[in-house]
Amino acid sequence: MKCGLVAADGAVLHRETRPTPRADPRDGGRAVLDALLETVVELSQKATAEGHRVRAIGVVVPGVIDAEHGTVGAENLEWVGTPVLASLRAAVATDVPIVLAHDVRAGGYAEFRQGALAGTTNSMFLPLGTGIAAAMIVDGSLVSGDGYAGELGHSKFIHGDAAELCACGQWGCLETVASAAALARRYTARTGRTVDGAREVMQLLAAGDPDAASVWKDALAALIDALVLYTTLVAPTRIAIGGGLIGAGETLLQPLREGVHARLTFQREPEIVAAVLGEEAGMLGAAQMAWDRAHEEETA
Amino acid sequence: MKCGLVAADGAVLHRETRPTPRADPRDGGRAVLDALLETVVELSQKATAEGHRVRAIGVVVPGVIDAEHGTVGAENLEWVGTPVLASLRAAVATDVPIVLAHDVRAGGYAEFRQGALAGTTNSMFLPLGTGIAAAMIVDGSLVSGDGYAGELGHSKFIHGDAAELCACGQWGCLETVASAAALARRYTARTGRTVDGAREVMQLLAAGDPDAASVWKDALAALIDALVLYTTLVAPTRIAIGGGLIGAGETLLQPLREGVHARLTFQREPEIVAAVLGEEAGMLGAAQMAWDRAHEEETA
Repeated sequence: MKCGLVAADGAVLHRETRPTPRADPRDGGRAVLDALLETVVELSQKATAEGHRVRAIGVVVPGVIDAEHGTVGAENLEWVGTPVLASLRAAVATDVPIVLAHDVRAGGYAEFRQGALAGTTNSMFLPLGTGIAAAMIVDGSLVSGDGYAGELGHSKFIHGDAAELCACGQWGCLETVASAAALARRYTARTGRTVDGAREVMQLLAAGDPDAASVWKDALAALIDALVLYTTLVAPTRIAIGGGLIGAGETLLQPLREGVHARLTFQREPEIVAAVLGEEAGMLGAAQMAWDRAHEEETA
Repeated sequence: MKCGLVAADGAVLHRETRPTPRADPRDGGRAVLDALLETVVELSQKATAEGHRVRAIGVVVPGVIDAEHGTVGAENLEWVGTPVLASLRAAVATDVPIVLAHDVRAGGYAEFRQGALAGTTNSMFLPLGTGIAAAMIVDGSLVSGDGYAGELGHSKFIHGDAAELCACGQWGCLETVASAAALARRYTARTGRTVDGAREVMQLLAAGDPDAASVWKDALAALIDALVLYTTLVAPTRIAIGGGLIGAGETLLQPLREGVHARLTFQREPEIVAAVLGEEAGMLGAAQMAWDRAHEEETA
């Protein structure tokens, strides 16, 4: 868990990383929730002890948030309709605003407000990590879709016999070939050789390994399809790629730019750039959303 | 051109249809623009003569609108950066608000405000006519994307050797198999037999014609792919199908519902319904947008 204390001007006064406990389905991921509550309480106490006033709390989670009820469903955390907002409210015992948001959307919001998407009104943040999801900026606002929007990683871009079954139950999702996890898994499936994640596949690619090249080529082709489709449907002026795979830099960005450019005909061509906030994007977005809420309540 | 006089409460006081002149590339579609200006002026005069006050003017066009400059690019009209807003302003010689909008988006807005999408905050209007484009309602607002958003008809849903070249220059667009025009064209390509549009293909389908069944099956498969993708990315709760093909009614809707239902796993399943405003949707949307603008200016 990446967490911190962030001032109104965006300055990070304190940052820390805490382990996420193993989620146990038998108690509905209770240990994860407890660790979250403990973190929020301890950080609040730390802020107070250091002479700050906690004005708002932002928490982001990798799951579907029911904004009306403040509950979260998150497969990886074993949460099903878990009352995260009410638990946070009870734990902090203050009435400061608490914002609950989706981790990728929060990361996209940080890139939009202070990062690679600043100044845009139509854009997308697409982190390529263990999984793939998009944060969509449309007509100047971050899209929520009641917590469901942005699942570009679970859209079908692999067709026919090449389509593999995704963990989500669909076939041929972008995530099955273009996530960091997929690169490693597909390299191993192809060669029988275990690798140390996408990082090693990229090293093998750089060294001229033909199997790494093949796996990489499939990922690029699916990503180009996805970016062209998103561009045609949603008309972004800029797309910021993030997540672990952006470590590949121009090795990733240049073929994406060329591939998208070659495919577009009448559409407005987006810039394709690297996200700039890295692993802290989610934490910064949570803080930004929390401060937005504090300012809203102030002026209401 | 479908046009009318619409009261503040949405009542259509007058409606008429006028022919669109043939667009001539040599004069940049000037005759079309002149016919539009004449229509707006004559309808304004008619309203005044009948004792009404024209409060706002709404014009929708099948093209890309540059909202900042009030210009329009519309291939079918031979318009390239045509100064439609300035021409309208000069022709009407009043300072009432003039709204310029995209025809499909205006139709979707009418369905959203007073039709099949009323009460939704995330939904889509998808008319299947000569072409295909989507009007997207996202987080309670009609999406503009600077005039570029919604081109689901020019998104790729046909892959490999089956992909045909689209008029837009891309391969395998939804429009190449699922528009009314495509049904007729593909039936003729398959059989060598000329048909009277999609209507005749549907009659042949009902009569058990195997070539009509094949062409129809391809259209349904591509539409299901498109609806699943839109649902995954944008999370609508309702999708309203319109355009000429909705004349097929449940013959179209039922397989779409079943196909989408069978494919979704974690996504929120949208209702798939028929649009209700028919051919007047664009005109009603133009009027609604014009009234919205008049009310905005009143309260500003």
